[in-house]
Amino acid sequence: MRLLLTLQYLGTRYAGWQAQANALAIQSVIEEVLAKMYGTEIRIEGAGRTDSGVHARAQKAHYDAPFAIPLRGLVRGMNDLLPHDIRVSAAEEIADDFHCRFRAKTKTYAYRIWNAEVMNVFEWETSAHVAQPLDPALMHEAAQALVGTHDFRAFTVITPEVSSTVRTIHECAVRRAQSAEKALEIRVVADGFLRFMVRRIAGSLIEIGRGKIGRESIRLALEPAFEEARWTAPAKGLVLEEIRY
Amino acid sequence: MRLLLTLQYLGTRYAGWQAQANALAIQSVIEEVLAKMYGTEIRIEGAGRTDSGVHARAQKAHYDAPFAIPLRGLVRGMNDLLPHDIRVSAAEEIADDFHCRFRAKTKTYAYRIWNAEVMNVFEWETSAHVAQPLDPALMHEAAQALVGTHDFRAFTVITPEVSSTVRTIHECAVRRAQSAEKALEIRVVADGFLRFMVRRIAGSLIEIGRGKIGRESIRLALEPAFEEARWTAPAKGLVLEEIRY
Repeated sequence: MRLLLTLQYLGTRYAGWQAQANALAIQSVIEEVLAKMYGTEIRIEGAGRTDSGVHARAQKAHYDAPFAIPLRGLVRGMNDLLPHDIRVSAAEEIADDFHCRFRAKTKTYAYRIWNAEVMNVFEWETSAHVAQPLDPALMHEAAQALVGTHDFRAFTVITPEVSSTVRTIHECAVRRAQSAEKALEIRVVADGFLRFMVRRIAGSLIEIGRGKIGRESIRLALEPAFEEARWTAPAKGLVLEEIRY
Repeated sequence: MRLLLTLQYLGTRYAGWQAQANALAIQSVIEEVLAKMYGTEIRIEGAGRTDSGVHARAQKAHYDAPFAIPLRGLVRGMNDLLPHDIRVSAAEEIADDFHCRFRAKTKTYAYRIWNAEVMNVFEWETSAHVAQPLDPALMHEAAQALVGTHDFRAFTVITPEVSSTVRTIHECAVRRAQSAEKALEIRVVADGFLRFMVRRIAGSLIEIGRGKIGRESIRLALEPAFEEARWTAPAKGLVLEEIRY
């Protein structure tokens, strides 16, 4: 019986989603809790491999349960055992051949910036701080060059396990956040993301927004000859918002 | 030369505003930074003595500066030295006889509640969690009994240094937060507050909102014979929002 979890977490204290030696991964914390619930080792698969410091509002993960536990009791039991910065918001039964990562049609990430001379303490954990005034309209305009199917190799680190660096961005919007005038949000919807991709997009858009580089830089970075988009915005501003199937 | 600071902080790591032995107070952290800036001991007075765990969006504090530092440089220098969870958002020169606490005309506190079965990790530090459904309209209606000049002794702890427990509440509103449907906010504007007053008001309103006590409980608690409003909501949901002069 395969179950799909919807998870929320603050990445601040963790070395990222994926289990690794000598560092506390979110995946491992959840697997440990599941081992307590079921009395046996459970291995989970996450839909998005968020990096160290990156947060999630609705990460998805699946696992094969050795026996049935009422879903509401499972959610409650897991939340009792999990630390305060990781929550299970839902659990549902899925088909045995469903894979939460391979089946994902789109993922949405949001990158948040506090744009004021002085940082806001309430935004500290989940926003990057940019003191110089940014021009969100200019950033939004520049970001439109990213929409469509492109080779995003300049916006990632090439590793052997990545077979293709082509991805399709459906939407890339830069706007002031509803909650606070000084907060900017970059929202990116794509069929998939490469490592550092949103943080490098955000980094380039910030440089454009503060007038350090031209708006054509985004378009140029997508050209084959381009090597690397050098500006990587800090992890703490990034949130995995949604995964759609 | 007297200066007025506007301060923002997360109270989570601190024993409250006021300096005390064997516990890290926000006042002490700021005084230490000022001592570094001026090269001499500086004593500051805060407008609101927030308790341990209580946050502030715009606390006010004043001190007498031994010499002039350009205000923008002062703000920048202090923020360079302060930890990330305390920020100076502004500094201004005031009259030498101005006292930030005694001159305050009104103070505004907001109490935030995440009202859903599962807590939200992004709200963890600054909201109380109430899993049972609350009725904000009923809470708002009940809260109106607090508006006006009353003896709030049931909503505080009587200590010898408090000469009167009479305060005037100008506004007490309960509503869903704009930012999220599951967040409720209790906003209280008064000429002054007693210790625990907002947290006890919030505690009583939560009990009313979940149907555990009747809406008349607030009115009854204001009557002279009443001893104590027993429900104290946790500190982390409370934010000192604004002080007006």
